Amino acid sequence: MLLEQIEKANDIKQIKKEDYGLLAEEIRQFLIEKISVTGGHLGSNLGAVELTMALHLSLDLPEDKIIWDVGHQSYTHKLLTGRRDGFENLRKYHGMSGFPKRKESNCDCFDTGHSSTSISAGLGLVKARDIKGEKNTIISVIGDGSLTGGMAYEALNNASRLETNFIIVLNDNNMSISENVGGISSYLNKVRTADSYLDLKEGVYNALRGMKGDNVIAKIRRIKSGVKQLVIPGMFFEDMGITYLGPVNGHDIGAMLRVIKEARKVKGAVLVHVITEKGKGYTPAERHPARFHGAEPFEIETGLPKVPRTTPNYTDIFSTVMCKLGQREEKVVAITAAMPDGTGLKRFRNMYPERFFDVGIAEEHAVTFAAGLAAGGLKPVVAIYSSFLQRAYDQILHDVCIQNLPVIFAIDRAGLVGSDGETHQGIFDLSYLSCIPGMYILAPKNKWELSDMLKYAVSFDGPIAIRYPRGEAYAGLKEFRAPIEFGKSEWIYQEKEIALLAVGSMVKTAEGVRARLKEAGHACSLVNARFVKPIDEEMLQKACKGHKLIVTLEENVASGGFGERIKRSMEAMGSKAKVLSVTIPDAYVEHGNVELLKKELQMDEESIYHCILKALGKKA
Amino acid sequence: MLLEQIEKANDIKQIKKEDYGLLAEEIRQFLIEKISVTGGHLGSNLGAVELTMALHLSLDLPEDKIIWDVGHQSYTHKLLTGRRDGFENLRKYHGMSGFPKRKESNCDCFDTGHSSTSISAGLGLVKARDIKGEKNTIISVIGDGSLTGGMAYEALNNASRLETNFIIVLNDNNMSISENVGGISSYLNKVRTADSYLDLKEGVYNALRGMKGDNVIAKIRRIKSGVKQLVIPGMFFEDMGITYLGPVNGHDIGAMLRVIKEARKVKGAVLVHVITEKGKGYTPAERHPARFHGAEPFEIETGLPKVPRTTPNYTDIFSTVMCKLGQREEKVVAITAAMPDGTGLKRFRNMYPERFFDVGIAEEHAVTFAAGLAAGGLKPVVAIYSSFLQRAYDQILHDVCIQNLPVIFAIDRAGLVGSDGETHQGIFDLSYLSCIPGMYILAPKNKWELSDMLKYAVSFDGPIAIRYPRGEAYAGLKEFRAPIEFGKSEWIYQEKEIALLAVGSMVKTAEGVRARLKEAGHACSLVNARFVKPIDEEMLQKACKGHKLIVTLEENVASGGFGERIKRSMEAMGSKAKVLSVTIPDAYVEHGNVELLKKELQMDEESIYHCILKALGKKA
Repeated sequence: MLLEQIEKANDIKQIKKEDYGLLAEEIRQFLIEKISVTGGHLGSNLGAVELTMALHLSLDLPEDKIIWDVGHQSYTHKLLTGRRDGFENLRKYHGMSGFPKRKESNCDCFDTGHSSTSISAGLGLVKARDIKGEKNTIISVIGDGSLTGGMAYEALNNASRLETNFIIVLNDNNMSISENVGGISSYLNKVRTADSYLDLKEGVYNALRGMKGDNVIAKIRRIKSGVKQLVIPGMFFEDMGITYLGPVNGHDIGAMLRVIKEARKVKGAVLVHVITEKGKGYTPAERHPARFHGAEPFEIETGLPKVPRTTPNYTDIFSTVMCKLGQREEKVVAITAAMPDGTGLKRFRNMYPERFFDVGIAEEHAVTFAAGLAAGGLKPVVAIYSSFLQRAYDQILHDVCIQNLPVIFAIDRAGLVGSDGETHQGIFDLSYLSCIPGMYILAPKNKWELSDMLKYAVSFDGPIAIRYPRGEAYAGLKEFRAPIEFGKSEWIYQEKEIALLAVGSMVKTAEGVRARLKEAGHACSLVNARFVKPIDEEMLQKACKGHKLIVTLEENVASGGFGERIKRSMEAMGSKAKVLSVTIPDAYVEHGNVELLKKELQMDEESIYHCILKALGKKA
Repeated sequence: MLLEQIEKANDIKQIKKEDYGLLAEEIRQFLIEKISVTGGHLGSNLGAVELTMALHLSLDLPEDKIIWDVGHQSYTHKLLTGRRDGFENLRKYHGMSGFPKRKESNCDCFDTGHSSTSISAGLGLVKARDIKGEKNTIISVIGDGSLTGGMAYEALNNASRLETNFIIVLNDNNMSISENVGGISSYLNKVRTADSYLDLKEGVYNALRGMKGDNVIAKIRRIKSGVKQLVIPGMFFEDMGITYLGPVNGHDIGAMLRVIKEARKVKGAVLVHVITEKGKGYTPAERHPARFHGAEPFEIETGLPKVPRTTPNYTDIFSTVMCKLGQREEKVVAITAAMPDGTGLKRFRNMYPERFFDVGIAEEHAVTFAAGLAAGGLKPVVAIYSSFLQRAYDQILHDVCIQNLPVIFAIDRAGLVGSDGETHQGIFDLSYLSCIPGMYILAPKNKWELSDMLKYAVSFDGPIAIRYPRGEAYAGLKEFRAPIEFGKSEWIYQEKEIALLAVGSMVKTAEGVRARLKEAGHACSLVNARFVKPIDEEMLQKACKGHKLIVTLEENVASGGFGERIKRSMEAMGSKAKVLSVTIPDAYVEHGNVELLKKELQMDEESIYHCILKALGKKA
């Protein structure tokens, strides 16, 4: 096995040139085997094997730096920097992260997770290098999907002024997580498929091959200007002041090595346009790129999941209800930021293509676009994951809520998300939304309530958010289905001594906690908060009167969350009842199984039960 | 006066063609006179007079829609839609806003204030129009400065797919608030100044003048493709799939009317590139565009402020200290998002040009770029106003704080800002920053403390934010200058009964409140919080023990702010002391004099004093 010869960074340079193809093959086999067991990001990694090899052959790590945009395409990079064994516990608690992590290796120079950050970060490293008088090479690798994010463009706009080298590799697989969208995508497609593609490949790169010395770029520019009349590859980037090289076949290591060599000679920002195929070398992943973006464990032969999902998750419920709402109400339109599959809006798209908008990885635009739709009299539903909606914080506050526009935020993956880890945990939305005037926030206890809340939201005249977690939709407490009323909580059990006030996913947990408390002889009420904002003051009055301990439960950090709001309301009403708040601690939560994480964070039934006993002054 | 004939929307259409120039002149005189008295945005408005007239002559408002990016160039629009009298109380409490407001006129179709939102909003209105089967014209007017913001690009990327009309007017004055920066700016400059400018103006527009019917665009395209070999104006936008028309002289109403007429025929998104001059027609504003961006009342003859500023504000202090820190510490670098003047970094730029970065209106990039600089071993200071930093919420959380990178956030305009109103109030930063793990937040009580805190921040190894208000730097309490220690508050007066815990700007207010309380016979302690995060638990223990009422004071909304954090800490330590929290209520705060706003919000000395008496159970 060639792969076994690679124990640390730069070991790849010992591999003979004629064995590059074989090594690429071994890497692909390794990734398919490992990810079929652990799950993880497959398609993007299979597409980036040769590209990563070429970068590692060209650079000296850790002195030279590679910033991986989003970062889930970094598995080959991890393999080539001595982390082969890490794949046994990929994305498991205390195991190797699915993203680059500075704390994991000195070859990971910048943590990523969210999209479109790599050019900004790379430019920062370049400027730091220049100011310190160092000479290393810095390369940002960004996908064409990430290029639809505005901050990538902000960074390109600034990179144009550079007078020292900075390489941006555009890894263009013509895909975001799903199909890529928009003008830039069409533009890149034109570049890829135009006649001039061949002209340039043959013309420019043949020319390049024969050239020596520092004038290569000048000559390329001249050759290019000669073919401008046909199609002008890269003029878009050249117009921004970025030197453009490409397109080049990203599965041809030789071609990649040559173009990187040339790119390093440019005194300024240079974009190398690399064409790759997502899922390359594994037929199921080539055919179903969205499914193999982030895959559950699968059978290698068929590509089918090892454990087929049988129970619906919240995304499925959202998907079904949206289709119904689309039929019932013509004003309902749906918006996703590059996640038609992940958010469950694919079915809505198929049924109502005119009322569906995939804006690309562009959360800021998504939200203000929705504000425009609402100002135009429609009922937009913006479906964005909790951690990605952070990108649109200002747009929610400034474009939707100041004008009190009826935009509905469907916030999936709210709470702990598991194996994607700290960059993806949806544990801040209750805080960053609660402080926005005019915003109202709901969370369903079970699958029926998500449906009821969505219907309620469509009838509501103002900004409103519904947050629900990743994973299986709770099917318990079916008998509790009082109509949703503005600002009203739901009493599930009404007793005394202890009152559990639970938000969304924590209602189920609270049920379990209550069962234990009852068994230990304690009376215990359970309230499904329903609304995190506004707080149901009437419910709270009642809870404070009849109970000596109020326990708030939420999958969110403490600061600015439900528990703090409850305390504030209690202070205002002069209540002196004791409050215990169960929240995510003030720290980032790493990757791992959600149940395990909840135990570690003392948010599981048992921990909460003991915590309550302690608060009651009893020995646990 | 022609202007007096314009009482409502569309009245301008009664003005004779030959009087357009005279009307433009009257509008300019009106604006200069009014703004010289009230203050306001002058330069951008003087530059947009003819452009606005041309739009109003071409459109039927309110059926047709104009979205003004940022919005401070909308004064002529306000004049032409019957709001002439509003200029008497421009930006005063309960007076006319300096920005478009839906609640002010049905000719204002979308509220703006922050940059780069207009194309997203316009696209939303376009899609709503199409879905509802309506036929009105929708125009977004965006400056070249706003075009450096990423969400403008996200929107352009989506606009490219349109198959119905949407007009984007690029009002290109080659200026942001200060000089514009980056590749796009250079590109536009090339388009403006290239030989082909004249070629096109003469060639294309002469041709256009003679043409009739629907084939004009096709003919323009043909003409363009013929001059591609020279310079290709607008190819950047054409590559994105947006039809480009221009450049056209934005002070030539006839030319503008012709180009808008042509633009309305395009079945898709069309960008009209209009060249204007910021401050046009008023020499001081033409010469000092940054000073006349947002102007204080000034003498018309000289352009100098009516009341010259004599006492330094916090921005001045920041400016001075940054220059000292730059000298003392080579690793200190400074970043601004298009605000070298507003943030006070201009002097740092002049002294250390290599270590200063103006990234354009690009807060997202600014923060992740700073993260890159910090990862590269430098000490970046990012100076962004509180309300604009909202744009970079995800980048602070995801790119800076997860990696615990030592980025210093200098947050100016934190708290009430006054005449810019609800879009610009800096009243959320304590909330949106406090919930981020690893972020620490400070606020100075006076000018010396800002200096001390900045020096402390540079020595701190992790993310840290210092927030300070607009306006005069408090010069009281000079004798209290204990060294800044991590997480430690400062006892100013130590008595009993009432403890005032004040954040930053509210320390001065608390002093006044305390004086009144003392006069009324109450003992009263005063604590300068210094740190909003972490909370000084030791101070709090002491405060809870010796006082029967704890009063928190902050210029921030309640949810997620200092007061809530204090209550949570008190709950954790089992204290039952009564807490009164003085905060901004959960609502947007309109424009107006800050002192007046504080009274209205019951955040002035007198209101707080009475509130405390009430909490003590006494009649006020």
